[in-house]
Amino acid sequence: MMGPMERRSLLRGLGGGLALTAGLAGRTARAEAPTPAPAFALADATARFDCDLATPARPLRHPWRTCVGSCHAPTALRADWQRQIARARAELGFAHVRFHGLLSDDMGTVLVLDDQLVYSFLNIDRVFDFLRSIGMRPVVELSFMPAALASGGDTVFRYRGNVTPPRRMEDWSRLVSTLVGHWVERYGLDEVARWPLEVWNEPNLRAFWTGGQAAYFDLYQASWNPVKAISPRLQVGGPATAANAWLPEFVAWSERNACPPDFLSTHYYPTDAFGNEHSDTVSQLAAAPLSVMRDRAREARAAAGARPLYYTEWNITSNSRDEMHDGPFCAALATRFALDVDDLVDAASWWTFSDIFEENWLPSRPFHGGFGLLTLHDIAKPVYRGFELVARLGSRAWTVAGAHPTVAAWVGGGEDARSSAVLVSNVAMPRHEIRAERVAVRLSGLAGRRPRAATVTRIDESHANPRAAWHAMGSPDYPLPRQVDALQAASALAGEPIGVAGDGATADVVLALPPNAIALVEIDWAA
Amino acid sequence: MMGPMERRSLLRGLGGGLALTAGLAGRTARAEAPTPAPAFALADATARFDCDLATPARPLRHPWRTCVGSCHAPTALRADWQRQIARARAELGFAHVRFHGLLSDDMGTVLVLDDQLVYSFLNIDRVFDFLRSIGMRPVVELSFMPAALASGGDTVFRYRGNVTPPRRMEDWSRLVSTLVGHWVERYGLDEVARWPLEVWNEPNLRAFWTGGQAAYFDLYQASWNPVKAISPRLQVGGPATAANAWLPEFVAWSERNACPPDFLSTHYYPTDAFGNEHSDTVSQLAAAPLSVMRDRAREARAAAGARPLYYTEWNITSNSRDEMHDGPFCAALATRFALDVDDLVDAASWWTFSDIFEENWLPSRPFHGGFGLLTLHDIAKPVYRGFELVARLGSRAWTVAGAHPTVAAWVGGGEDARSSAVLVSNVAMPRHEIRAERVAVRLSGLAGRRPRAATVTRIDESHANPRAAWHAMGSPDYPLPRQVDALQAASALAGEPIGVAGDGATADVVLALPPNAIALVEIDWAA
Repeated sequence: MMGPMERRSLLRGLGGGLALTAGLAGRTARAEAPTPAPAFALADATARFDCDLATPARPLRHPWRTCVGSCHAPTALRADWQRQIARARAELGFAHVRFHGLLSDDMGTVLVLDDQLVYSFLNIDRVFDFLRSIGMRPVVELSFMPAALASGGDTVFRYRGNVTPPRRMEDWSRLVSTLVGHWVERYGLDEVARWPLEVWNEPNLRAFWTGGQAAYFDLYQASWNPVKAISPRLQVGGPATAANAWLPEFVAWSERNACPPDFLSTHYYPTDAFGNEHSDTVSQLAAAPLSVMRDRAREARAAAGARPLYYTEWNITSNSRDEMHDGPFCAALATRFALDVDDLVDAASWWTFSDIFEENWLPSRPFHGGFGLLTLHDIAKPVYRGFELVARLGSRAWTVAGAHPTVAAWVGGGEDARSSAVLVSNVAMPRHEIRAERVAVRLSGLAGRRPRAATVTRIDESHANPRAAWHAMGSPDYPLPRQVDALQAASALAGEPIGVAGDGATADVVLALPPNAIALVEIDWAA
Repeated sequence: MMGPMERRSLLRGLGGGLALTAGLAGRTARAEAPTPAPAFALADATARFDCDLATPARPLRHPWRTCVGSCHAPTALRADWQRQIARARAELGFAHVRFHGLLSDDMGTVLVLDDQLVYSFLNIDRVFDFLRSIGMRPVVELSFMPAALASGGDTVFRYRGNVTPPRRMEDWSRLVSTLVGHWVERYGLDEVARWPLEVWNEPNLRAFWTGGQAAYFDLYQASWNPVKAISPRLQVGGPATAANAWLPEFVAWSERNACPPDFLSTHYYPTDAFGNEHSDTVSQLAAAPLSVMRDRAREARAAAGARPLYYTEWNITSNSRDEMHDGPFCAALATRFALDVDDLVDAASWWTFSDIFEENWLPSRPFHGGFGLLTLHDIAKPVYRGFELVARLGSRAWTVAGAHPTVAAWVGGGEDARSSAVLVSNVAMPRHEIRAERVAVRLSGLAGRRPRAATVTRIDESHANPRAAWHAMGSPDYPLPRQVDALQAASALAGEPIGVAGDGATADVVLALPPNAIALVEIDWAA
């Protein structure tokens, strides 16, 4: 498992042999060649941006990295799941993982034997022990209802998560108390105080909770009380709703009832609210503005006030079989959304890190439109690589001036002034006009710094796009090991040299961008 | 992961510092001390055996090593399952593993989408890829019925394996054909021809099969036909019955119907047939003779004729919560049973290798009486160590003369004459008289060989008995990592020097054996 920095060096080293196809210019650059000239004249740019590096930077907080989603708890016991999340942790830096069903019967958490409730936390321990062994932590979603406690038989998904309120609320409280107490004993209070305890999942949807709002608020309080009795330092939150729902009501109710949340959580998918509920994913997405995630995050932030705000689920669509998830469009749109909410939210947990996902059924096909960043065969999809590029923007960002219907630009850097990174994307919602663009980003306020060298790393139809390689090999349902190796190679990022002109005062990044594409230009400065 | 031989050397090396408590003699020997004198005078022996090493040896076939059982297929995706079986493979040499439920819905093997049957073999591939990666192979149990094919809703176990015949037998045949064809494509015919394909599990029990014998025979034929259509080299067998049932009928029917089995399989637990069906495990076991496994194996061998005979399940009891499984009694009884059928059966698959077992529910307690050779926390139980000692008998055995109500002795060795191994056990069924014994085994026909050195390795209440260590630490339900380490240490085998007197013609192994104990004496010969 390589760390992000080793990976970056390796890929730069490997990049030399690979051809760069610049969509508009149609020319080929090779790493052995002298630094290439810009792809077009600055005056021909169709999208222009300016960034003054002499102005104060804001922190780039990368809330997309705070947490990532996963299929339900039992999948976390799988060897392939553990291998994949260890890689995503090492390469992308995810700190927490969240999944449904920790309390469900297939985790064996609680059952009735001889009329007694019996607890068994072996499976949960095994998952959390593993997470701690790779430096990760859970966002603990307290769900679903163990059959031993349930008031009804309604279930969700193929794996039959029970979505009914408890028959006796005190049994729920006792389960929460026993389980959280066990964690404090096993991992220590300092550790468990870093695990957000989120009550349930999407209780505003009947498919996930048959009890309605009042019963959910009761469930939340019946969780808050035993946890806070163990220690007020432990963090309890909610309402974990779909589509930004219930936020002001939840805050008001919980404050009125002396159980204020330590964090506010909700979900948003850009397909949630637009178009007809029964329309197809493309139609729903086509009806959403590009600003949808930022718009909703602003509203949620207003409800949260100073509390941490966690989007514990998001993705570009909520359709678990959507070919958009597998291609470069997803990388372009997801990175735009992630950067759009960087200053507004404290976590934005991509649903999900892996196509090992069995809510409906687990297909075998390598690219089947699943939510995952990684395919069933451990292949990084373009969106995985997109987050990798976002991470390489660094820990600080500078304001970028300029606007364009489809192109956006971000300028970032690390804690020193020796390098800068410019991320550009060209993306539009489906059925909206998009074309290849000639992008120019002028950096000013350089205080004498001149470009020493620069590389461009692209994700588009012909870069870091393993699905295209899979199609080229005949779309095998069951790829053989050598085919999986070829897909791994096709999924790699490859940096190429790019010419950046600069005079010590300003420098111009100019590059062609095809539709549904992103590119990261990394500039090393000479003093 | 150590191989058995490295482990053996290591343990011998470590043995030096450990005290040996000989049950009867009550004295302490230390490895640093000169080779100790025998624990008692030869004339005081209470159990005597003789073995002439000048007679021809018979092969020691170790059918217990051919296959081992496991909980149902989805557990084979777990990281802890994979870690444990890789260890058992490396240390004990298991060649195959068998489990229920390969075709069940929780493996996602087949489902109906838009009125079409859809196959998905990802999970199965993942399990078998893993097994091949550690040099193991499956015994493929074709079970249970996918809901998409089932004629009814009857299920078995907490994990709800569907036990009804297929609604349309041709759908079953097509599934078998598609799946086995997929394996041949993925792994090659030479490989798949080494996987016994066993049709169903215990169809003679209504809990596992609602169709009765005639429907089972149909299912077998509907499996045999498509497999043999792929290649006659593939091995299909059955009837996989509980308790030695249906063997002659199955052979007669299948020969009459032109689908003769490539192997015969059945199960036997010594609790199967004795005492009242509703009596407790101890009563059932108490009613069985010590020869029960050999008696049944003889009958099954008669039915099998020259065909391979696989006991695809056995254990000392069929009770999944039986404290006997965790202690030295199990090691003494299981090793006796294993050696008793060595010349009669071609596989005797211990049910199961691990306590990671969720047929009823998965407890957290380290010692809960599960079937496993290894506990939930990877601790080798005495029976695991017992099989380790049986393996160390080597590949050849010599006839041992002598009889005793509770003590038995075996003499083995490898392919050369440089060492011999003497295994002795002292065990009785529950409620039968047993006492500490003074055992003497006289080896003759030595052709000038004299003992150069000898070690004894014991399994009894105070040797290789981690449950006793767990009790001593207060029986924690959730042992902490340091406690797990202590249990690992307590589970280790420790060889101690033992004096063996010899004059080049004969040599005498004499040692005290407490009840429910085994000991292996390994002698290096000087020419």
